[in-house]
Amino acid sequence: MTVENMSSFSLDKTLEILRQTPATLLHLTGGLSDFWVTRNEGPDTWSVYDVVGHLIHGDKTDWLPRVHTILSASPEKQFVPFDRFAQFEASKGKTLRELLQEFQAVRQQNLTQLRALPITPGDLDKTGIHPTFGPVTLRQLLSTWAVHDLDHIAQIARVMAKQYQAETGPWIAFLKVLNS
Amino acid sequence: MTVENMSSFSLDKTLEILRQTPATLLHLTGGLSDFWVTRNEGPDTWSVYDVVGHLIHGDKTDWLPRVHTILSASPEKQFVPFDRFAQFEASKGKTLRELLQEFQAVRQQNLTQLRALPITPGDLDKTGIHPTFGPVTLRQLLSTWAVHDLDHIAQIARVMAKQYQAETGPWIAFLKVLNS
Repeated sequence: MTVENMSSFSLDKTLEILRQTPATLLHLTGGLSDFWVTRNEGPDTWSVYDVVGHLIHGDKTDWLPRVHTILSASPEKQFVPFDRFAQFEASKGKTLRELLQEFQAVRQQNLTQLRALPITPGDLDKTGIHPTFGPVTLRQLLSTWAVHDLDHIAQIARVMAKQYQAETGPWIAFLKVLNS
Repeated sequence: MTVENMSSFSLDKTLEILRQTPATLLHLTGGLSDFWVTRNEGPDTWSVYDVVGHLIHGDKTDWLPRVHTILSASPEKQFVPFDRFAQFEASKGKTLRELLQEFQAVRQQNLTQLRALPITPGDLDKTGIHPTFGPVTLRQLLSTWAVHDLDHIAQIARVMAKQYQAETGPWIAFLKVLNS
């Protein structure tokens, strides 16, 4: 069995992750007071509110356009660099509820488009050029889109947990999320 | 302002976290195939399925009984040690869906009971005896119950993410959840 054959990737499994994120975030954060939502982990870190804005920007400008770049017949395979700070402008004046709804809408559109693409097994090895990494495959891009969601779900849980860090007293020793 | 006055704790904020966890877990994990649910992070680590069983056992045997121990008039303040491996027996033969529903039911009962307790600000400083830490306050216990939920939400996202670790290729460098 070659390494290629041992790949864990499947488009269906990837879609399972991408599909659950909007509803997960809605339940995880939609009923919270500002204390949990607007605080961060310290200077140059993000709040729950910031993270949701970041996810919207990724779904609007990054993931699916990169899929199209890889699959297109054009020889231009360079990805547009992603703006990791765009949400600080884009989210202005919006409530978290509005952001969660916006994310749900853009994700749903993206998944509809993604499912409609005639992606063949061979397409998964096609590449685009990442600004930092150079050539990356469609398989890696789609996998990273899913893991990126999970990364930010973990981050949101961690940011919230840290607001109560001092309150847990000695239990901090047993709570991995407070030590990461 | 004393340290005491600077406490971030409130019962309402704590309840906000405890309330969201069952629905969050249902959406995060309820629609996933076994690939995401039954794999762990390596020897002596837990799968998503194991973590949900652990949360059920905590809600059935640990958190609220310890609240009662602290608040009771009895001089016996020693907590019963928590069995961190009970779920391996208790979950046997159950689907993840069943566990998620069981968790939702037991958590709802616990929150109903917790809200019915006449907890005064002074009660928050009352203590019980933790098997490892010695005296811990009701404030610390309730805070830890909430942070423990968030710890395991972050863990679930991490365990899932790691199943795709090799698939992300060079992006692993940007995905904090894969490096924790």
